[in-house]
This record gives sequence, C-alpha cells and structure tokens, in this order.
Amino acid sequence: MAGVLVLNRNNLIEIKMNKKHNFSAGPCILPQEVFQKSAEAVLDFNGLGLSLLEISHRSKDFVAVMDEARAIVKRLMNLNDDYEALFLQGGASLQFVMVPFNLLTTTGKAAYLDTGTWAAGAIKEAQKLGNVEIVASSKTDQYSYIPKNYTVGKDFDYFHCTSNNTIYGTQMKEFPQVEAPMVCDMSSDIFSRQLDFSKFDLIYAGAQKNMGPAGTVLVVVKKDVLGRTQREIPSYLDYSLHIKKESMFNTPPVFAVYASLLTLQHLEQNGGIAAAETKNKAKAELIYNEIDRNPLFEGFASTEDRSVMNVSFKLTDESKKEKFDALWKEAGINGLNGHRSIGGYRASLYNALPLESVQVLVNVMKSLD
Amino acid sequence: MAGVLVLNRNNLIEIKMNKKHNFSAGPCILPQEVFQKSAEAVLDFNGLGLSLLEISHRSKDFVAVMDEARAIVKRLMNLNDDYEALFLQGGASLQFVMVPFNLLTTTGKAAYLDTGTWAAGAIKEAQKLGNVEIVASSKTDQYSYIPKNYTVGKDFDYFHCTSNNTIYGTQMKEFPQVEAPMVCDMSSDIFSRQLDFSKFDLIYAGAQKNMGPAGTVLVVVKKDVLGRTQREIPSYLDYSLHIKKESMFNTPPVFAVYASLLTLQHLEQNGGIAAAETKNKAKAELIYNEIDRNPLFEGFASTEDRSVMNVSFKLTDESKKEKFDALWKEAGINGLNGHRSIGGYRASLYNALPLESVQVLVNVMKSLD
Repeated sequence: MAGVLVLNRNNLIEIKMNKKHNFSAGPCILPQEVFQKSAEAVLDFNGLGLSLLEISHRSKDFVAVMDEARAIVKRLMNLNDDYEALFLQGGASLQFVMVPFNLLTTTGKAAYLDTGTWAAGAIKEAQKLGNVEIVASSKTDQYSYIPKNYTVGKDFDYFHCTSNNTIYGTQMKEFPQVEAPMVCDMSSDIFSRQLDFSKFDLIYAGAQKNMGPAGTVLVVVKKDVLGRTQREIPSYLDYSLHIKKESMFNTPPVFAVYASLLTLQHLEQNGGIAAAETKNKAKAELIYNEIDRNPLFEGFASTEDRSVMNVSFKLTDESKKEKFDALWKEAGINGLNGHRSIGGYRASLYNALPLESVQVLVNVMKSLD
Repeated sequence: MAGVLVLNRNNLIEIKMNKKHNFSAGPCILPQEVFQKSAEAVLDFNGLGLSLLEISHRSKDFVAVMDEARAIVKRLMNLNDDYEALFLQGGASLQFVMVPFNLLTTTGKAAYLDTGTWAAGAIKEAQKLGNVEIVASSKTDQYSYIPKNYTVGKDFDYFHCTSNNTIYGTQMKEFPQVEAPMVCDMSSDIFSRQLDFSKFDLIYAGAQKNMGPAGTVLVVVKKDVLGRTQREIPSYLDYSLHIKKESMFNTPPVFAVYASLLTLQHLEQNGGIAAAETKNKAKAELIYNEIDRNPLFEGFASTEDRSVMNVSFKLTDESKKEKFDALWKEAGINGLNGHRSIGGYRASLYNALPLESVQVLVNVMKSLD
C-alpha cells in the first residue's frame, strides 16, 4: 500500500493515501469512505469472520444488503411502490437489448432521440428487434448539442433518451412531454441532480459513475409498462422475472451491489441529491467560467446544453499541449484525456469529486501561458 | 473488523481473522491471500494512489489485469490460440441464453444432457430459440445419477452438458465421445481437476466457486464454432464481438476480474490444477468415508457419480437434527445446509477449502450419537 497507516480516535486503522485528483469518466472517483468500508468488508463482513466475497448471496446478511440497496434508490428518487429497483449485470449495453425485448411489441415501433455514441448504440440494438424511429439527431453536428422541438405521439411503444453524454459533454436540461412511456439511460448523471423521476417509466444506469464500482447496472421500472409485448423473453433479459425474484434470479454481483449501497448511503447521509446538485453546479461553474475566460481553451458543447458532469474542452493552440499535459500531471491530476473519438480533454465532475480538485485544475489552466 | 492486527516479518499489517470453516456452495471460500490483496487494491491499486474501483478500465494497469486473466486461463487449461477466454457478466444464467444465440442455427437442433436444475435451466432457454433434443435425463430419479450410454450424432449443432451438479452432488467423471461440438457448463468444478480441455468447444463457468467472487463469468471458446448460425445476435450476447474487443466491449466488472486473476495466480503458484485435484480428492475421500462408515448418515448421489466438489448427504434419523446442527455450528462451520429443493446437508469442498476444515466436520459427524 502506498499510503500511511495511522490510528484514528477509535484506535482503528486508517490508511491515509496520497490521493490524486481523479477526473476519470468512469469508472471514477467514489467517496473515500466507500473504499475504506468495502475493503474492510472484503476482509471481514459484518463481523461474521467471513469475507463479503465468500458468503452466500442467500445469507441474511447479503439479502439485507440487496433489500436496502433497492429501497434506498426509491427513497432517493422519491418513487412509490409502482416502481421497482433492480441491480443487474451486463451494464447499460445489455440494457440496450433488454429495453426493446421487454417494451417493443412485434408490430409496434419505438422512438429514440439520437444524442451521441451511447444513444446510437441503444438504437442499433433496438433496430435488431423491431421498428425504430429516430425522432431527432444531432449527429451531423458531431453531437455538440441536444436536439429539441420534436414530438412523440402515443402510437409509439416507448420513447428512449440519454440524459447525459460523457463523450461530448452535453446534458438534457429538460425532458420532453411525450405521450409514450419514457425510458432514459441515466448512466452518467444519475443521482447528480434533482428530477421528477416519476415522469419516467424506466430508468437505467451503469453503476460506475455516481453510484458505485463497475459490475452492476441499476434498473428502475414502473411495473405497469411490463408484460405488454407478448414476446418470449430469455429469462435473464426479463425484467418481470427479476422483479419476482427480488433481484436475485441468479447470483448477483455481490461486491458491486454492496459498494453501490455504501455510495448511496453516503449520498443520503450527506444531504441527498439536493446537496449533491448544489455542489456539482459549483464545480461546473468554476471550470466553465475558466474555459470562457481563458482564450487558450474552448468548450466542445453548445453553451445551453453543457453537461454538469462531463466538461469536454480543448486547447485553442495545439502547440501548448505538451506543456499543459506536463502541468496537470505534475499537479496530481488523473484521467483528463478526452475520449479517443473526439480527443482534447474531459474533466468529469462526478458527485465524489471535491471542489478542491476542480480548483487545482483551474489553477493549472490559469498558469498556462 | 473482527480480526486481530499483527505485524508480519516485513512490518506489513496483517489482519488475522477468526476464520470459519466455510462449506458454502457458492459464493464460497477463496484463498485468504485473495481477500488480503483485493482489499489492498480497493484502497490503493499498484501504488497508483488510486483505488482499483476508480481507475479507468482502459488504463494500462487494468488492461494488463484483463490480458493476464485471459492468458492464465489458457495456460492453466493448456489450450492453444484456437481458443479465446472472455470475462463477461450475467453469470451462467446469461450463458444459457448466449450459447444457443451463438451456436444454434435457425433450422438445426441442439442436444442437451439433463442432469439437474442448472441443466434444465439451460434447456429451457435453448428451447425458446430453437429445437432441442434431450438425449438423456435422470430427472425421474431426482437427478441422483449421471445418465450414460447415449449418442450424439453430427446432425446436432452442439451437445450441452453440466459437469457438476451443486444441488445433487453428482459429477461427470467421463465425458462422452460426441460428433457435435461439445459445450459444457463447468461453473461448479472448473479448475478442480485435470481434463483434456481441448475436447470441448465452449466452456463457461460463473466465477463464484473455484475462480473468484460473484460478478463475472468465464467463457472459453474455440473460435471456429462461431459465425455459423446467421442469426442477428444482440451485441452483448455476441461472443465474436467480445473476442474482437478483447473482453472489453463495454466496461467489464473490474473488481471481480481482478479478484479472479488473484485466485488463478494463487492456483498457478501452488501447483496448478494437478495439485488442486490431489487435494480435492483427499478432502472428498475423508468425508465420503465417514458417510459410508457412519450409520447416522447417508449420501444422496449414486456412489459412482459422487461429486468431489459438493457432498450432499442427510441424517438417517431426523430426530438427531437439532443436536447435529448445534454441534457443527459450535465447531465454527458455516454454509452446511443443503439446497432448499432437497434439504439435508451439503459440504462444498472447493479448491480453497483446507483439509483441516473437512477434518473438523468429520470429527463432528463422528461425535454425533
């Protein structure tokens, strides 16, 4: 371990690490307390004398973890019992497949909003199963903005959108009024801002941004949209079966679910989504102000659609690249390179990133000349 | 933490826990070193000053983990480059779906051997996609033996079998000569015994027995069986795509893959599968000898098909149950209850279970009167 071992007030071991400023796009920074508590659970879970990794998923200790993880999601989102929360596997990529399997009728059609690479991935999988209409797209403008002014009538089985785009740094600030059930991939901004979650019929999100480590995907579904397609759904892909089995149809990803629960408990104990939103806005304002002020940098996304989670930007003068890269690395900053598809830089400001880290980056940007 | 903190010879912290004798059927006991090293990685991975949970899966440190995990599987199994190893999500349950999606042609048929609950689950999913012929079944005898003397001709797209049955405690000692590609669910006995793995065309195994924690599933596939079905396969379900993307089509279950690598490294450094097999045989002999000797106990499975991994047994006199349960719990034994579908007891003897733990159980069995 690279850290320093110290005894805290309760004579427990604490490992103080020389932490980096971690701007990774996901997997990403989580609360330090989550690392500490999940490491302890790997050594001994709940004082059982057993590791979290070696207990049965049907043991009462783990069933309590799954039950609370499902419950805390609904509390944080202020959702009633019309909804169920599931912790599944396969990431958002498998949700691209499961959504149409469960919601797209064999004769019907689905509406998709094309706002980036992940939306396009979801569209591709739905097209393999049935009829898809792309109601709007910003593809020809390199996905630099969120299309608006489209309508979705009740003749669609559902409408699918992606709330935030990690690569391009765009974010839906408002969601449309649609007449079809609304499905949203919130992988990269879930739990980062207050929304009326009851406007959505199905929400999914890979854990590895604001919610936990890689290895589980959250699905929140309003039960009354299920059971309409009359498709024969493979068991693992069937939301209704996972609901019936209380998210334990098969062995769940035990560690990822537990670390997600710790992350959500940390959120709930620190003011919930409202407090996270205030903090996230302050971080985003700090860096966007610098991008707008400093002639050496320019943002990628249209100003009105700028993401509070992922700030994509570039140098206006490429000859400064070597110097800038050396400066931020020297400052202990990690994960700032832009996605390989568009290059440049990307500062991801997920819930657990402290304002202090953004200030360190902004200071580096100011010091570039 | 319930353990005691001590300094070892290198002045590093070690946590000595009051370990239980863990006979859980999976998730199950892993080498203590795996718990220690994976907990350390959650605090600080490779001395990066970052947790394993917060680094990018595309970082060179994690790409090296995935590459080595895939390579060590092939080394341990003595497989050449005709094969690829993948670490995916969704457990064996999603493999029940992926196998027919990738191997069952729309006009062809698949042969399945029905040896228990998991085999029946695989059959159910394949039947949703195409034609399935059950070539033999022991269902009417409560799956207490492995059917033999069946043939599988080359007119089948593939033959599917389950090498070991956790619930009934049966195990295939020999694999049939079949003319179709052979697919095997080895979830519960992979890496426990030497086999000619090159006889199989596709092997899959949920990690949470001999290979690692819950949250990833290993797939080992001979590339030339792929690409024959002309089905449109959903991306996440497509083995060819996962191979092309080097098991990183989407964010992999980072922690589960790393802990699996640690488990496989421990196996390789301790004599490989051959040494594990010798140890496993000794453990199985010890407990089966006691079951056969002691009139208070009887085994569930047919003698010739007894599993070396999962020993299912029951009391011959149910009135002794309360006393026996108190005795083994008092001895620090965990996870001995049989599966809810057949009751009784089940001692799982996975690779990481020490012979000492089996001796403790046998002593308890001897002390019952």
